[in-house]
Amino acid sequence: MAKEITTRAEDYSQWYTDLVVKAQLADYSSVRGCMVIRPRGYAIWEKMHDALDAMFKETGHVNAYFPLFIPKSYLSREAEHVEGFAKECAVVTHYRLKTSPEGGSVVVDEDAKLEEELIVRPTSETIIWNTYKSWVQSYRDLPILVNQWANVVRWEMRTRLFLRTAEFLWQEGHTAHATREEAEEEAQKMVNVYATFAREWLAMPVIVGVKTESERFAGAVNTYCIEALMQDGKALQAGTSHFLGQNFAKAFDVKYADINGKLEYVWASSWGVSTRLIGGLIMTHSDDNGLVLPPRLASVHVVIVPIYKTEEERSQIRACAETLLQELKAEGIVAKFDDRDNLKPGFKFAEHEMHGIPLRIAIGPRDLANGTVELARRDTLAKSSEPLVGLAARIPALLETMQHDMYQKALKFVEANIRKVDTYEEFKRVLDEDGGFISAHWDGTPETEALIKEETKATIRCIPLDSVPEEGVCVRTGKPSHRRVLFARAY
Amino acid sequence: MAKEITTRAEDYSQWYTDLVVKAQLADYSSVRGCMVIRPRGYAIWEKMHDALDAMFKETGHVNAYFPLFIPKSYLSREAEHVEGFAKECAVVTHYRLKTSPEGGSVVVDEDAKLEEELIVRPTSETIIWNTYKSWVQSYRDLPILVNQWANVVRWEMRTRLFLRTAEFLWQEGHTAHATREEAEEEAQKMVNVYATFAREWLAMPVIVGVKTESERFAGAVNTYCIEALMQDGKALQAGTSHFLGQNFAKAFDVKYADINGKLEYVWASSWGVSTRLIGGLIMTHSDDNGLVLPPRLASVHVVIVPIYKTEEERSQIRACAETLLQELKAEGIVAKFDDRDNLKPGFKFAEHEMHGIPLRIAIGPRDLANGTVELARRDTLAKSSEPLVGLAARIPALLETMQHDMYQKALKFVEANIRKVDTYEEFKRVLDEDGGFISAHWDGTPETEALIKEETKATIRCIPLDSVPEEGVCVRTGKPSHRRVLFARAY
Repeated sequence: MAKEITTRAEDYSQWYTDLVVKAQLADYSSVRGCMVIRPRGYAIWEKMHDALDAMFKETGHVNAYFPLFIPKSYLSREAEHVEGFAKECAVVTHYRLKTSPEGGSVVVDEDAKLEEELIVRPTSETIIWNTYKSWVQSYRDLPILVNQWANVVRWEMRTRLFLRTAEFLWQEGHTAHATREEAEEEAQKMVNVYATFAREWLAMPVIVGVKTESERFAGAVNTYCIEALMQDGKALQAGTSHFLGQNFAKAFDVKYADINGKLEYVWASSWGVSTRLIGGLIMTHSDDNGLVLPPRLASVHVVIVPIYKTEEERSQIRACAETLLQELKAEGIVAKFDDRDNLKPGFKFAEHEMHGIPLRIAIGPRDLANGTVELARRDTLAKSSEPLVGLAARIPALLETMQHDMYQKALKFVEANIRKVDTYEEFKRVLDEDGGFISAHWDGTPETEALIKEETKATIRCIPLDSVPEEGVCVRTGKPSHRRVLFARAY
Repeated sequence: MAKEITTRAEDYSQWYTDLVVKAQLADYSSVRGCMVIRPRGYAIWEKMHDALDAMFKETGHVNAYFPLFIPKSYLSREAEHVEGFAKECAVVTHYRLKTSPEGGSVVVDEDAKLEEELIVRPTSETIIWNTYKSWVQSYRDLPILVNQWANVVRWEMRTRLFLRTAEFLWQEGHTAHATREEAEEEAQKMVNVYATFAREWLAMPVIVGVKTESERFAGAVNTYCIEALMQDGKALQAGTSHFLGQNFAKAFDVKYADINGKLEYVWASSWGVSTRLIGGLIMTHSDDNGLVLPPRLASVHVVIVPIYKTEEERSQIRACAETLLQELKAEGIVAKFDDRDNLKPGFKFAEHEMHGIPLRIAIGPRDLANGTVELARRDTLAKSSEPLVGLAARIPALLETMQHDMYQKALKFVEANIRKVDTYEEFKRVLDEDGGFISAHWDGTPETEALIKEETKATIRCIPLDSVPEEGVCVRTGKPSHRRVLFARAY
């Protein structure tokens, strides 16, 4: 590569942005806060989409599509929702442009003003529950288990590629149920689907927990979440699943007749993950050489680089590579032969490392003579000389090993960075010196939570679902506490 | 079904809308001109997406994602494009709402007015070519073969579900090339991909042609298209592929250095199909009983309906159905057992016909005794008694036969409805009495084309790519003509 990226030690935040841009995953567009997701980045999203979509369908969900626009008045229907979402939104006020009187450019046609402004969806609870009203009459119409893949817009003031952008891509599940129990079970089921997906596909360890009242989704009764830990010790909320109670059913008057004909409000859940996961993936695994991609999310698993001086060597290596490509294809492995003649092998190596291709095979004249290749793993950067015979057949297992190793490495990092802390001094010291998750007692009040946030910039990431009751005293107020919660500074 | 739909003979337009709503494919939303694509409709779009996406990737394309919003000034950059698209658009003028002074509702925050308005993309040439400027330096960066799956908005005044909605889903390919020949070849290649897709997946015959100047995409040098014929004799433009010349490269200053270092403008193509295809699919095959779906686009291929009086019969039939379900699954066939106990078989039959499930298997006590089932084809409505033994193994071939038969039936209809006409009297008579495509001579001028459109509401759908030179005189003006073109009234 012509230019390298900033190292993590030097400036973690700049490293991240450099990597996203240099690995050609995404780039800022000329539209404020909106990103262009480049083919290499979008290919990762496609893999995520396909894996998640299959998991949603296995759990009985179907996809649908609802309008991009939400009438402004809908946002006001659910009291907490409006507080949470009707703020930084893109507002459509007109539906026509016209040629400017001077010509050459276009101006907004003031005659084409909408009677009611339309909001570009920041999330779709309101428009979807307004629709469910006409879908639900009786208990036989329930449950509704619908998911939507869509773009949403939140006019964020400070944006970062993938992590926080004005427009982003996501999926949002919106389910309707006859009973409270069923809706709560759904919300919990889906946060566990997210956890499984993060662990098995992203090789990203996550803690499954429930949010405190202050951190809840606007309009939810309970918000479940998966929280991940980035290499710089900051936490990342990677997915949320909400039990919405009857809040949206009441706001949009969605009732069903039960088996006895009695009308009841419908119970709801909603759950979503977004292109933010790509940011989490990068910050979990990548290094100063560029992207490190779990093999299950890679579109290209193997790149073969020829090393030659003469045209004769080149054609001999090409013949060898072509056979290997065919053998790899037969194993279900996607491999590319990088035969570009205007670039040195060293440049190619650096470029493929930047792009995160899991395995690199280099073949030179000596390899040909010895019947070997040089195999390099992207995750460990380890190189080894491998016999060519039977190589292709060994690759699938090696990729599985890498997927497993990446998860284990990340898991060790998270485990080493959850610290039990019992005094506020230590709390602040750990935050500043080590980062990571802090497991501490808290008195359960939003006031103390806000105070800690103000004083330390740490928030309660979640109350882990597997946490056990433990008597103690709040790290900040000394008041009694019955269980530890996880604090961290977060993205 | 409780209520039936209007018949085609009665009111074709109403039949279409009734069908879309009753088959639960889509519905109008509370947002003007925007539709809700319901799970049964979206499942068809998913099948189309997967098939097309695979075809795009086989032809070397990758996916990416560009911003939803386009700065207003971009639309003015390409002179013809602005005329064609900067009209009925959704315009974002503000980025914040605030609680109204009276409370309880939200109002637009006038302090949050955008310096430059943003347009919700009606198509993405401008924002994409503005991005390509930073992607292209040398001939080595070309070609760019990118596709995007996205939602777009055109503020149509008269909307119809799937056929013409304010927001719709589509894919838009945007490619960049070093030479004119390569870009033209790409545009032609992709219109042929669309034709293959329409024929093989939608079982929809299409005519591949090129548009006249008046019907061209705004900003294109040439627009290729596939044109289909609906059962009411009206044509439907089902997909377009444009050779854009250097128009957008010039508008956004996108140049590449050729092998000698000389700077040249880049050549472009763009191509798209949308959820409109679902409308075309419906109007090609469906009948007065509801949706008729080509098996390759069906998510559920077979429904099994039990016919019983006693609980004992019911449980015997269920055992038989469960074995059959397993056998079908092993054949790769998706089958459902409709065991709902609150509905009569006749109601279920009508409902499954409405939903377009390709095959229905009914099993009653007499079938159990005889080792048979009743098999009904949705396309022909033909019923037959079939031996249960080996049934599952025969289903895949039967579905292939149905796919083939549906195409052949539609093809015969189109072939019977292309009429050579040589006088204007006959032209008008055929249009009014028969509809369909009219193959006629035209003098090649936009003026005559406009005159014919004004007088008859017929437009030139295309000049078929396989048309042969033929001397004649224009059906309207009597001026010389060198080839026939296809006229029709169109959706």
